[in-house]
Amino acid sequence: MAPSSWLDIASDSRFSLANIPFGIATFPNSEKPTVAVAIGDYALNLAVFALHDGFSQLAEIQAHVGVFDKQSLNGLAALGRSLSGAVRRYLQDIFRGDTPYPHLLKDNRELRNQCLVPLTQIRMHLPFHIGDFSDFYGGMNHAYNAGALFRGQNGALLPNYLHLPMAYHGRSSSIFVSGTAVRRPWGQIVEDITAAEKHPIFVPCRTMDFELELGCFVCGGNQPFDNISIKEAENNIFGFVLLNDWSARDIQRWEYVPLGPFNGKNFATTISAWVVLADALEPFRKPGMKHPGTLLPYLQEQREAFTYDLNLEVQLVSGSTKRKSTICSTNASDGLVWSFPQMLAHHTITGCTMRAGDLLGSGTISGETTSSLGCLLEQTLNGKRPIQLEGGEQRAWLEDGDEVILKAWAGNEMDGYVGFGDAAGVLLSAHKQIA
Amino acid sequence: MAPSSWLDIASDSRFSLANIPFGIATFPNSEKPTVAVAIGDYALNLAVFALHDGFSQLAEIQAHVGVFDKQSLNGLAALGRSLSGAVRRYLQDIFRGDTPYPHLLKDNRELRNQCLVPLTQIRMHLPFHIGDFSDFYGGMNHAYNAGALFRGQNGALLPNYLHLPMAYHGRSSSIFVSGTAVRRPWGQIVEDITAAEKHPIFVPCRTMDFELELGCFVCGGNQPFDNISIKEAENNIFGFVLLNDWSARDIQRWEYVPLGPFNGKNFATTISAWVVLADALEPFRKPGMKHPGTLLPYLQEQREAFTYDLNLEVQLVSGSTKRKSTICSTNASDGLVWSFPQMLAHHTITGCTMRAGDLLGSGTISGETTSSLGCLLEQTLNGKRPIQLEGGEQRAWLEDGDEVILKAWAGNEMDGYVGFGDAAGVLLSAHKQIA
Repeated sequence: MAPSSWLDIASDSRFSLANIPFGIATFPNSEKPTVAVAIGDYALNLAVFALHDGFSQLAEIQAHVGVFDKQSLNGLAALGRSLSGAVRRYLQDIFRGDTPYPHLLKDNRELRNQCLVPLTQIRMHLPFHIGDFSDFYGGMNHAYNAGALFRGQNGALLPNYLHLPMAYHGRSSSIFVSGTAVRRPWGQIVEDITAAEKHPIFVPCRTMDFELELGCFVCGGNQPFDNISIKEAENNIFGFVLLNDWSARDIQRWEYVPLGPFNGKNFATTISAWVVLADALEPFRKPGMKHPGTLLPYLQEQREAFTYDLNLEVQLVSGSTKRKSTICSTNASDGLVWSFPQMLAHHTITGCTMRAGDLLGSGTISGETTSSLGCLLEQTLNGKRPIQLEGGEQRAWLEDGDEVILKAWAGNEMDGYVGFGDAAGVLLSAHKQIA
Repeated sequence: MAPSSWLDIASDSRFSLANIPFGIATFPNSEKPTVAVAIGDYALNLAVFALHDGFSQLAEIQAHVGVFDKQSLNGLAALGRSLSGAVRRYLQDIFRGDTPYPHLLKDNRELRNQCLVPLTQIRMHLPFHIGDFSDFYGGMNHAYNAGALFRGQNGALLPNYLHLPMAYHGRSSSIFVSGTAVRRPWGQIVEDITAAEKHPIFVPCRTMDFELELGCFVCGGNQPFDNISIKEAENNIFGFVLLNDWSARDIQRWEYVPLGPFNGKNFATTISAWVVLADALEPFRKPGMKHPGTLLPYLQEQREAFTYDLNLEVQLVSGSTKRKSTICSTNASDGLVWSFPQMLAHHTITGCTMRAGDLLGSGTISGETTSSLGCLLEQTLNGKRPIQLEGGEQRAWLEDGDEVILKAWAGNEMDGYVGFGDAAGVLLSAHKQIA
């Protein structure tokens, strides 16, 4: 049973006392975004809280309270996982019904009025200045299904997939916070990709897709040309967001050999605004899919429970009917064969530098049933088997005006939910023409 | 005949009055890097020059002189190509023998002593905070040669190569300024990549290579989901550097299908410190290789002279003999079939956002003769035909202690050279073991 709070937190709130996710928010009567945490239906402005000695009972943060008055979480993350974890636990203490420090917030009505604000009154921003974004391919069901659709079943899983967590470097300039509308891109496509003569045409993407992924923000941690070992990797993970790697399948298919996805992916990636700390997900550790290969020692996971019992859902709000359909329900433990520590260990094994705020995408998380597949490419078999929406509509691919909403939560009403913010975005129609 | 300067500039200086490249330098008696230009054997500290009203005769920069007191060129570049071009022309006026403003620097001995410092006394840094780095594949000879070595001659040039300037997103955290030593990476390799059963081993890279490329820094220019048309592209180019895309061929070969190069490239990219403005290269425009395909309108170059008559050279200083060999001599116009405006137009055609300081790599520039090939993979036919070095040594691949130095210059003694800074780096031995 979770400890209760003096703050009124609904039992079904995704931001229970067990959660305390971090984000960057603009508060009313303020122009500058600051660091915030979410609790129940409220956000706590940590810059204002710190200014009024709210952190006076947490000795180890005293020299660093400047990190709360920043427009990104990079400074906080760079302090390391143990210090951000201590801040979270301290804030849990602040909000407990039996808080040892009632004078700091609970009984300080003036400060509460200043720094504790309904979520409806704040505006969220990207949580990090993201230096580099790398998108992995850690979901084996997705890798197999997508490979079969792009290359046929014989070439579905390439031999290297069983030995290394593969990834492509993504684009950080086009990562948007939840709520940002995304515009359908133009690009080169080849209508008959199997024809001997390929004649690309220039049109708006016809096969717009989403991808259900987890994003992992790192604390940084290695100097150039050093690595982060799999043992150290957990300590270099700050927390998690939902990530929609919008994909223009027709553009991707024509361009991706041999250098990988480029224009098919680089126009937009949507992430949720609140970063759920790795510490908050610890109680939900769970064994995942068993990796079918024999791994080199630098990739061997330390624990069987390398993933989380985290429910994932994709909702589609039809642009024409405005009705909402749940088009995917799965679990983080159902599709990933590679863990984030393995990804981080592999990414840095060459000495590649990680900086606080760098983002790793998990790759699309797909379960084994149709309703648990994490993108339309797989759900519709590359457009051939449209899915049914509430109200009788069908979708082979996303249509203009459709909104895609990713959701995630662990826990239950008894112990409190550890929920993510949504990663939502409406698909706008393509520009009428391109100059 | 170039105008002469009151400053003593050697006729063979790469930093003639016709050049004026920009960079970020730490000057003696200063802790903070600032914006600088190079001229002859000197660097001018633009922050100090601006502080003492050095820019008083350039009206359009008055509101923006703060950009010179920064630790990156991002602010200057974001002002747009025409304003950075105006600053360059103004500085040329400042240094001309018949300068219209002798009181600003020429006759102001005290200020000259403060802000005009020998290059040997300054320390150079990365010129930009690089948000995103995209590495193209614009050299058709290289694409053909590398493709033939990786996939055989039939699959050498894939059909899409003729229709679009392909690229992969690179890693910005591991871009280093010239002079930074680079460490040989560890990674997964498969010794017999053609065997039916692939058994990766974990070893230091055995086939270390360089790649001779041009880098292009952009001014930014588009809002999310808008594009930069090929007509507008020139105006969004700030300037150029040399770029060595260090490559671990054995790691790359095992990992690169289907998502492209990742660990084979992400440990290090070296760039030259001084950014040669696009304006400075305008007099050296030259037609390049004719593109063999029929291009979609959005990719059609406006002018035949889409590249530059820019001499390129690779020197290798042997780690064991310390003797220097010139192992590649080519020209920017000899290998590239895609121009930077085409790359920029393609990259943004989806609406992908460009930010000031984003970096585009050209791809390896290889001519047609052996001595004009821009990487060892091609020169040695994947290690099978070692090259000869001065002093009788051979190289199939780079050895520990070898230094690779890229050089570039346009112009001549009469009109003044427009030379690049070197992009140099020593290859350190791999870590003895990886924890």
